[in-house]
This record gives sequence, C-alpha cells and structure tokens, in this order.
Amino acid sequence: MTRTLQGTPAADGFRMPGEFESHAGCWMLWPERPDNWREAARPAQTAFAQVAAAIAQFEPLTMGVSGTHYAAACALLPADVRVVEMAHDDCWMRDVGPTCVVNRRGTVRGVDWHFNAWGGLAGGLYFPWDQDELVARKVLACEGLARYRAPIVNEGGAIHVDGAGTALVTEECLLNPNRNPTLTRAALEAQLRAYLGVTQVIWLGRGVVNDETGGHIDNLACFVRPGEVCLTWTDRRRDPQHAVSRDAWERLRDARDARGRRLKVTRLPMPGPLFLREREARGIVPLEGSRARRAGERLAASYVNFYIANRGIVMPLLDARTDRLAAQRLKRLFPGRRVVGVPAREILLGGGNIHCITQQVPAGTRTRSPSAS
Amino acid sequence: MTRTLQGTPAADGFRMPGEFESHAGCWMLWPERPDNWREAARPAQTAFAQVAAAIAQFEPLTMGVSGTHYAAACALLPADVRVVEMAHDDCWMRDVGPTCVVNRRGTVRGVDWHFNAWGGLAGGLYFPWDQDELVARKVLACEGLARYRAPIVNEGGAIHVDGAGTALVTEECLLNPNRNPTLTRAALEAQLRAYLGVTQVIWLGRGVVNDETGGHIDNLACFVRPGEVCLTWTDRRRDPQHAVSRDAWERLRDARDARGRRLKVTRLPMPGPLFLREREARGIVPLEGSRARRAGERLAASYVNFYIANRGIVMPLLDARTDRLAAQRLKRLFPGRRVVGVPAREILLGGGNIHCITQQVPAGTRTRSPSAS
Repeated sequence: MTRTLQGTPAADGFRMPGEFESHAGCWMLWPERPDNWREAARPAQTAFAQVAAAIAQFEPLTMGVSGTHYAAACALLPADVRVVEMAHDDCWMRDVGPTCVVNRRGTVRGVDWHFNAWGGLAGGLYFPWDQDELVARKVLACEGLARYRAPIVNEGGAIHVDGAGTALVTEECLLNPNRNPTLTRAALEAQLRAYLGVTQVIWLGRGVVNDETGGHIDNLACFVRPGEVCLTWTDRRRDPQHAVSRDAWERLRDARDARGRRLKVTRLPMPGPLFLREREARGIVPLEGSRARRAGERLAASYVNFYIANRGIVMPLLDARTDRLAAQRLKRLFPGRRVVGVPAREILLGGGNIHCITQQVPAGTRTRSPSAS
Repeated sequence: MTRTLQGTPAADGFRMPGEFESHAGCWMLWPERPDNWREAARPAQTAFAQVAAAIAQFEPLTMGVSGTHYAAACALLPADVRVVEMAHDDCWMRDVGPTCVVNRRGTVRGVDWHFNAWGGLAGGLYFPWDQDELVARKVLACEGLARYRAPIVNEGGAIHVDGAGTALVTEECLLNPNRNPTLTRAALEAQLRAYLGVTQVIWLGRGVVNDETGGHIDNLACFVRPGEVCLTWTDRRRDPQHAVSRDAWERLRDARDARGRRLKVTRLPMPGPLFLREREARGIVPLEGSRARRAGERLAASYVNFYIANRGIVMPLLDARTDRLAAQRLKRLFPGRRVVGVPAREILLGGGNIHCITQQVPAGTRTRSPSAS
C-alpha cells in the first residue's frame, strides 16, 4: 500500500503546481460504460486514444483500463502509451485521480480527495462509485508517491491553481450541499489552503450552462500562467451562458491573486451551442441509477477544457465554425507550445472534455523512467 | 501498449542475468482462489505478506492484486510494498511474469512466454488461464520495459541460468508433450539460446517427487553463482526423491557449463517428507476443472525454492527438524547476504514456494523510482 501521510501538504511545505509547470507525465482512464458512452463506448475509445496519442507526443502517458477491456485497449492504443489495469466506474481521471503537490526539493506527493460521483445520492451521476474512489490511491501506488487523504469531497476539475498561491473555484460546485453540506465557505477555503498550499481563493459563481458536474471551474476558466486567466465566452446575449460568463468576467476583473495582482483575462469563444442528437442518444443504453441523456439536451461545450502538456496544448475540436479561432487564441496565449486539436465531440457527449479526462503528475527531481529501450 | 519487439534477445545482444545479480525490484501476485488456497486463501495471504515484507527489506516489491481484493490486500500489506491492480488466475509470478533480460548498456527488456497453466488441457492445473497469460505484458507495461513474445510455452520456474551462458532445466518439464509437443530437444535448446542468451543447456531428468508443475527446476536445483549449484537432497534411500536427486547429482557432476567448467554442487537437506493434512484439505473448495487436493498427498517440499534478493536470501521455513540446518547451509553459500526465513507451509500447500511466487526485475542503468518520499 502506498504510504498515507498524516498532516497536510501546506504544513509540510507542499503546493499544487500550475498545470503549465513541468510534468513527469499524464494519466487517463479508458471509457467503457454503455450507459454513458454511446455504441458501447467505441467512438469514445477512438477519441480517447487520439487524445492519448496527442499527449504522448509531449510527455509519458499512462492509460488505466479495466481488466475486461485491457487487451482490446492495448490493441487500440499506440505503442508509446503505457497501459495499466485499473478498475473504475467511469473515466474522468481529472476528478478521480490524485491532485499532485510538490515541495521545493522536488518531492512529489498526491492528494486523494473523497469522491461521490459529483453529488452522491443527491444529484450525483451514477451509483456506485467505489472503484472510482480507489483510483487516486492506485495511481499514487503505481507511481510510488506518498498520499494525503483529504477529509472533504472534491474533484480535480473543481479547482485550478496558478502554482503561486491562488486557487480558482466556483460557488456552484464547491458550495453545493451535495458535496460537503456541513462546511461553510470559510471552512472550505481552509481545506483548499491546507491541501493545495494556496493563500488566496478566487470564487466565481456558476459554471458552464448545463454542466452536469455542478459547475466545474475547468470547463469555465483556467490559469494560462500566474496573473493570466482564460474564460469561455459568448457575445450572444440571449444565450444563458452570456450571463454566466459575464458574471465570471466581472469577478475576475475585481479579483486579486495571492500576490495582490489584478488578473489579465482572455476570452475564448464558445462553440455551438451544441445539442445531443437523436441518433447519438439512441446509442446510449439507459440504466437505472445513472443520469439519463435525452436527445436535444444542450451539451456543456467549452474550449477551455484543454490540457496543458509539456511544450504542448491538446485542445478539443468541437465546431468547425469556431475551432480555428479558438486554436489561434490558444496559440497566442501559449507561444512556447504546439497546439494540437483532437476531434472531441464524442468526449463531450459523455459529459466533459479533454481536461476532464486527464490528470498530470508534476515533474520532480528524480526520473520515473525505468531501464527501458 | 508496451512495445513488442521483433527479433530475439540473443540476436539483440541481451542475456538473462543470474538471480544473484543486482535487482531493480521484485514482483509478486496475491493468492485468492479458494479451490487452491485453503480457507479462502487467508492463511496464504498472511504468508505472502510476510514474504513481501521480507523481500521489501532488500529491494522494491510490487504486489499485483485483483480489483476485487485490492483494498483488503492494501490493508494486509506493509506500507513499503507497492500494490497494483492486476487480474490473474493464480498467483505464481515466477511462471506467469516476464523473464527479464539485459544488455551490456544496462537496458532491461522482458520475455513473455506462452503460458498454459503447466500443461493446458493435457494435465494443466486449471482452466481458464487467460488472465495469467496477460500478466507478463502488464508487468512490462507498468515497468516501461519493451517485450519479446517468445513463441513457446514455458514458465520462469522451468529455467535457471548462471547469467554467463548456461541454462539449467529438467527433461520432465521441458520435454513434456503438454508444453511444446512438436519441438524436439534440439529445437527447445535453440529457443532457450535465442530468448535467454545462453550457449549451453544442462538437462537434469525429473523434478522433485510429486511436483505438480511437471518437474520445475526451481524446486530441485539452482545456481548459487556461476560454476556453483545447490541441489535438494535426501539420504533416505527408500524415499523416491533419493533416486531423483541422485540422478540430478550425477548429471551435474558430469556437466560442463558454457565456459567449459565443472560445477561445484552443494546438497541442501530436504524437509519432511511432508503431507497434506486432513484439516488442511478440508479448507479447500473443490471446483470442477481444477486439480483436486487430497489429504495424505505428499507435498513437493524443498528448501531450494528460495528467492535471492539484493543482499538477502528469503527462504521457506517448512520443518522444524531441518529449517536450521538448511538456513546454515544457505548462509555459507551466500556469505554476502542476510538469510531471512519465512514460515511457508501455507505456500507449499498451494503447490510451490517462495521462488515460485516471486519474479525479479534486474537492475538497469536508469533508476525506476519516481520523485517520491
């Protein structure tokens, strides 16, 4: 069993680095469940394999796959992806994987949050979630990293940090009574300080319209670097997303980060609006206990849901009308990185996007690679 | 998927090192099946955990555990054991794990033999064995090591090497028609040369009496170092093992290794003879398709079935009348290593011992440890 530490990262001198800092590698999980992924998850598997291949150009990529799907996943994935057996209830590694923290000596450790499928029995997306709950400790065990067990329900997609003392979250998600009903805003901030090593928490309001995670920050806005945020945006005033993004923009404009700086905010155009098609809905096997998906539902599409890899950006391609503009913006925001687009509608259909299905392990002082060749 | 190489280790300049050479670490699997391990495998799990703890004193130890047993195994294993999820049909990592090879630059790769549960449908021990068949590639993927897929049925326990060109095998096992019925002795030798990087194969006759693997060498004899072998031995002439060990001794006496040397042979006293007790047999759940275990059966007990770790020997304790003598012999044979005994009757009841349940990964030029602490 991986070592579980007492104490907290902050007390031990650890902080969560920004995603734009150097990575040792990235983890994903394989999509499998037929009640969330159409056509027994085959189209999603193709999309996930393309994301994995894109990330593996930039950093080591490990895919966790259930025992049942192991051999098939190996056949579908490129040779440079490491495939490890790992049971899970669904494949959102951002939310069920560890949130890694580092100290000044370059030691890496992991935070294992409690997970309740985005709301437990009060609005969560499926039951049970016991295998998801084990994923973070399995990743940490596999990587040989020590583990902090955080005492709150949280998901990696519900937090962004600048690596320099500032966290970015939404009220819709963190204050939702289906996560930590007994904790006040102040108590939650105290937990974020303790487990992320931050000193300042910036609260936005709601997340992207119809985001079934309960308003994850990682679909709405993210840090590009300390002092700079990008925000999903639409100018269409009749779109309910307009008010959401406008409110976020105003809060970001008024915010100060941990160093007292104002934030520079860049707007990323939204795709769509996009909706679940009839034939897509037909491919999903409805199961009791899981959230139903109905044709015509609005999809929570956002280009902000990209992954920052070492020297690369892996972004979702979602809408031919806006993909190019979003890619151009990202190129300008990340001049040192190559922007790679992956067709991602199939990921969106499952309820998230590229950032939701990935989780970085920050680079430490020691290498993780064995004596391979 | 881990990279699968064309070609053979020998052609690529690789050889299997002796077990006494330096290790990066060791792998095991968790005992689980109730038709082979009495009392739902709990006593065996205690014994395996003790073996894991003993080895972890000397080198990194990874335990593969099925998803079902993952959380319980974590609770039973010490904190310095890495636990990874890994399905298997039974827990004989020596036989289902990779046989690792190295080259002069210190690159490590793995040989993945075909596995048929020690005889397939013609005398094998259980059906199916599809999860066992995936273990070697999963270990190699987890370690990031490239894989050779050997074209023959073989098990790690069926081969020993001196790391200097010599392999030691038994006719009973390798020439058994339930492994590779179409291959002659010469053809098998050619495969061992190609996949182990050896030039000389020493053939002993039968394995230990009643050894259900079909006479694995690793229960009968092993290399202590190049030029030196230890052999399980009994002076009791009426014991059928006497003739087996005598024949092995004569063949070893007449053999030459790859460098043309005669071998020094040390005899290790046998425990027992030991037999399966009535109450032990009662704890096993007999299942159709698996080998039955009957009270009174002779157990294939041997002290040769020890594991050589970095600076240590982990040996089975099997019989209070002989344990101390065997430990003394091993201390003399391995003066640079600390000899640790682990109570191992529960492992023996399942059909093997400490060497059978372990598989070393040789040390390479690069470290495998991540940025942990």
